[in-house]
Amino acid sequence: MVTSQEQPPPRRGRGRRPAAEVRAGVLRAAADLLLGEGVKAVTFDRVAAAAGSSKVTLYKWWPSAGALAAEAYFTHSEHTLEFPDTGDLRADLTAQIRAFVRLLTEGRTGPVIAGLIGVAQTDPELSAAFSRYYSGPRRALAMATFVKARDRGELRADIDLGILVDQLWGACYHRLLIPDEPLTEDFAVALVDNALDGARVR
Amino acid sequence: MVTSQEQPPPRRGRGRRPAAEVRAGVLRAAADLLLGEGVKAVTFDRVAAAAGSSKVTLYKWWPSAGALAAEAYFTHSEHTLEFPDTGDLRADLTAQIRAFVRLLTEGRTGPVIAGLIGVAQTDPELSAAFSRYYSGPRRALAMATFVKARDRGELRADIDLGILVDQLWGACYHRLLIPDEPLTEDFAVALVDNALDGARVR
Repeated sequence: MVTSQEQPPPRRGRGRRPAAEVRAGVLRAAADLLLGEGVKAVTFDRVAAAAGSSKVTLYKWWPSAGALAAEAYFTHSEHTLEFPDTGDLRADLTAQIRAFVRLLTEGRTGPVIAGLIGVAQTDPELSAAFSRYYSGPRRALAMATFVKARDRGELRADIDLGILVDQLWGACYHRLLIPDEPLTEDFAVALVDNALDGARVR
Repeated sequence: MVTSQEQPPPRRGRGRRPAAEVRAGVLRAAADLLLGEGVKAVTFDRVAAAAGSSKVTLYKWWPSAGALAAEAYFTHSEHTLEFPDTGDLRADLTAQIRAFVRLLTEGRTGPVIAGLIGVAQTDPELSAAFSRYYSGPRRALAMATFVKARDRGELRADIDLGILVDQLWGACYHRLLIPDEPLTEDFAVALVDNALDGARVR
């Protein structure tokens, strides 16, 4: 039997670093560049240099620098996907959309998310990563909440609940990406009321 | 008095081209590159070469290549800003949003608009040009329609009509820019109904 004392000491050369460790280091370096300087700073050249990895490795693992940026961001940022569920849809939605507006307007998150969506328009791999890591799971969670509210009798049975996602979060993204009008918590509150109550006179 | 026959023939050298003519040629070249190859092809280098102009001139006239792309697009594309106004808001809005969805999904317009919004996230000059030439005027026109509908008694007096713009056009942009769900004319119709009627059970 070979005891640990008989094993040679681990070699610390780069060639021996396990792939998972290299990958984690690359993602950390990419996240630092993204948060510090924005999405344009996340190039294979700069990430490889910052992580002490080879560019060849990065090309093997990520189809584009944008896809690397997206995975780095959603791996290294706290994005609680929890949705309050008190059984009162208006209150829960208002809390959720207000929190989303705060996320987009405080700190670095808004510009980073906007930058990722921006690059996604000409980088299909980043677009796919954004859907997989971020918008897809968030849409699924909102839908689950809407289905529960419909089953409780709060939402109409005859509407396409998916569209409600676009009316709420899409409206917030609209003000983030095309900033003709301000993105505020007052907007969030009024948006939820509009979507639930409708704009027409009865 | 100097008659036209006594004037020297116009010199055709580049140095003599009137600024307005040069400017029009540059915008045409930029629009061709944008529609043919996408927003990333619109660089000062390539536009100057295509238009036979000097890069120095382009730098003088446009603060960024993105701003040039935006002005080129909105100068050279047909974007009817007309809004049907039959006195029936639901019918008029449905026609308008369906036409918008068709614009975004047929031909090159959708990818070009998405590309411009994409680059705008890291190019404030393009963002400003997009607002000035496109989203600003469109928002103003929608608001004018909403105000008329409110005055006719079709829209509630107690809601922020600006938010309705985000709920309708913002929802369409959401499906264009983050394509988790399809952007279709059925979506357009259901979106208008949702926005007017509200999602909650009464």
